[in-house]
Amino acid sequence: MTTTSGPITSQQLLEQWQGHRRLTRKVIEAFPDDKLFTYSIGGMRPFSALVLEMLAIAGPGATGAATGKWGEYDDQSKNPPKTKKELLDLWDKATAVIDTEFPKITPQRFQEVDKAFGMYEGPIFWSILYFIDNEIHHRGQGYVYLRSLGVEPPPFWER
Amino acid sequence: MTTTSGPITSQQLLEQWQGHRRLTRKVIEAFPDDKLFTYSIGGMRPFSALVLEMLAIAGPGATGAATGKWGEYDDQSKNPPKTKKELLDLWDKATAVIDTEFPKITPQRFQEVDKAFGMYEGPIFWSILYFIDNEIHHRGQGYVYLRSLGVEPPPFWER
Repeated sequence: MTTTSGPITSQQLLEQWQGHRRLTRKVIEAFPDDKLFTYSIGGMRPFSALVLEMLAIAGPGATGAATGKWGEYDDQSKNPPKTKKELLDLWDKATAVIDTEFPKITPQRFQEVDKAFGMYEGPIFWSILYFIDNEIHHRGQGYVYLRSLGVEPPPFWER
Repeated sequence: MTTTSGPITSQQLLEQWQGHRRLTRKVIEAFPDDKLFTYSIGGMRPFSALVLEMLAIAGPGATGAATGKWGEYDDQSKNPPKTKKELLDLWDKATAVIDTEFPKITPQRFQEVDKAFGMYEGPIFWSILYFIDNEIHHRGQGYVYLRSLGVEPPPFWER
């Protein structure tokens, strides 16, 4: 078992993740209700589907990172949310799961190699950065959707 | 002076940044030559301008983080690149600057509060995460441009 002396603390990484998630929440809110579920560019998924991908990763990812127990990756719920309100409620539930699970990840666990969702092999820190980066990536796409709808997105630096 | 026991090492954070930069380089390459400088959606900047923003941040940001000497933020060069080749050459120069400067950032420096580019106050780790996140954000927008041009972007997980 080793611990690393590094550039950031676990608590700072958690705050970084939740800061991004607060911004993504504002982006969800910025979408016109119907466009959230229907609007797309270039054959891509609507923003609601990108958010469901983030939700399939967020809570289950934090839980898997903390416990080594990974559920199956599932962004195709049989009962997907149909309104912005339902989507935001799922978002807030995931926020609470992350706040509970993330602090259980030990410094040595961050460096352990594991298969996230039974599929993606790498150190835990790498999986968690992937979870965050994937959200930033898809949220950036949501910004283009909003701009092309004539809606001003929230500033990127606002967390 | 304190050092932090954290989830990742400096070397891993550098590799994370350069991995993202390798992917962004592929996205630049994927653009049709003219569209790189002209195509936009919703009144946004063309991808070349987003890349110039990344370049204004990358090398100068790594240098400022390492040395405390921040140049002025400048993404409006008087002599901006006019071809994909010129843009990629600037990209590769920045890669070398980051590889040289980043390892000079000490663990305690990562936690020091400084004003990035004389303007954005926060700990150095926070500024560096911002540099990386800003690139992911704008690159994600480039993915939408490519999709709407009918061009398949490189896979997000390829670094």
